[in-house]
Amino acid sequence: MHIHHIAIAVRDLDTALAFYRDALGAEVAERREVPTEGVEIAFLPLGTSEIELLEPLDPDNSIGRFLEHRGEGIHHLCLLVDNVERTIARLEAQGARMATPVRVQEDGTRYAFIHPKSAQGVLIELYEKPAQ
Amino acid sequence: MHIHHIAIAVRDLDTALAFYRDALGAEVAERREVPTEGVEIAFLPLGTSEIELLEPLDPDNSIGRFLEHRGEGIHHLCLLVDNVERTIARLEAQGARMATPVRVQEDGTRYAFIHPKSAQGVLIELYEKPAQ
Repeated sequence: MHIHHIAIAVRDLDTALAFYRDALGAEVAERREVPTEGVEIAFLPLGTSEIELLEPLDPDNSIGRFLEHRGEGIHHLCLLVDNVERTIARLEAQGARMATPVRVQEDGTRYAFIHPKSAQGVLIELYEKPAQ
Repeated sequence: MHIHHIAIAVRDLDTALAFYRDALGAEVAERREVPTEGVEIAFLPLGTSEIELLEPLDPDNSIGRFLEHRGEGIHHLCLLVDNVERTIARLEAQGARMATPVRVQEDGTRYAFIHPKSAQGVLIELYEKPAQ
């Protein structure tokens, strides 16, 4: 298990990149819109993890509402796991609660979010890469 | 540059470990009180990064006040850098603001915090290991 990424909700990607890329010195590996999730994302790899900057495409989606209620900041922490379903079974056996069911992307990636009430206020994404 | 750790402020370390260690399955490498910082810390390595769980020893210190105002959650993100002073010089040249001066631990570790207003709401620690 390792930290796959840290997602930061931002109001404006260009302003955020002026800090994370130009001032801090992280490199942008990719920047693209993800219409199915309603965000534009910039990926900045840092060692075996990365920072993901998320700008909402719609103020009424989940990232837009997060910004309105909480302001800019860390939105979630994503952990790469070997097997999402097995991890969830162990979590639920210990009384933890999931925020979402497991979803599967077109490339076979599987992911689900743990409820922050079960994780000391942190929204944690579990992420499993497809078998090669 | 990589993500050295993610620090999570928690009310009670044992309760937090019931989730992060027992349910999620992360291992605890070390647990100790750091009286100079007013916290008890548990370190849970994950790949090249780690999760640090911080319980305040005093409700009036900075972690205690964070919990009172914001509740449990991610407190800061720490980035390992080659040279803290050089990183700060680049940040300040781009208009970013520091929250603290550089501090030096007994082992020669150097660290400083960037103000969250300059970093899209994220409190970022810059951390430099002593030369070997």
